Amino acid sequence: MADLCRQTIFCDLASTLQDNTGYDQWVDGFRSILYYGRANRKMFFHIFFSDYRSSLMTALDEYSHNIIRKAIRRCADDSRISVSSETINFMSDFYYFVFIGVIRQDISTRFSSDPEQILAGCQVTMESSIQKSLMKFAAAGK
Amino acid sequence: MADLCRQTIFCDLASTLQDNTGYDQWVDGFRSILYYGRANRKMFFHIFFSDYRSSLMTALDEYSHNIIRKAIRRCADDSRISVSSETINFMSDFYYFVFIGVIRQDISTRFSSDPEQILAGCQVTMESSIQKSLMKFAAAGK
Repeated sequence: MADLCRQTIFCDLASTLQDNTGYDQWVDGFRSILYYGRANRKMFFHIFFSDYRSSLMTALDEYSHNIIRKAIRRCADDSRISVSSETINFMSDFYYFVFIGVIRQDISTRFSSDPEQILAGCQVTMESSIQKSLMKFAAAGK
Repeated sequence: MADLCRQTIFCDLASTLQDNTGYDQWVDGFRSILYYGRANRKMFFHIFFSDYRSSLMTALDEYSHNIIRKAIRRCADDSRISVSSETINFMSDFYYFVFIGVIRQDISTRFSSDPEQILAGCQVTMESSIQKSLMKFAAAGK
């Protein structure tokens, strides 16, 4: 049963998120994760409180990292900002830590916050920050 | 022995960090944590690989949250930006997730990165971002 739940949630997330990988689409990708847990609350917490918690969290970690990494690469390409792969890695980690921190907090409060409010806050703090940071790294030759 | 180590590391960190709570001083506070682990590597990992790991991580979490929260409050006060306590809480969590993510990654790689390089990267991504985000939240009446 746990195996089936796990397989389902991972497949669902994979198909929900596969198209949300453009620069501006990190918001949609992030939204998908926040809403997926809410729409599948019972199954989600069934897995979360089972032996498969670490598999679930690893999957969420990987999806989050994937979304944010592609968003940063897309932003650099679209704006023709040339930075090293180390900078892309550093920035991917930086925003990934935010993503996964917000998601873990959301899970720990049992999805009690308004997902749109979470997203709006993240957009304010992240939206122009990614491009500006890339430009600053590029100006410093990093 | 573990008790003594734990008490020592917590007292040391508390005294190292207590003065690093101004806006621009989040860098110094963050630097203190990164260098403290390196200067006390043996004791640090002794605690990290003991039953006291969760106490150590909780202490680091609290210090990090404290530093970043004070930095955001100071930034808002100094720039006379008026935002709600919810916004201060949201932004404190946002940057705290980055801090603790970077620290956990640093521990997991056994302090193999150059701490000044970590700090420089965080400064590029965070420096103007805190003030600009506060201004955007204030403009939205949040």
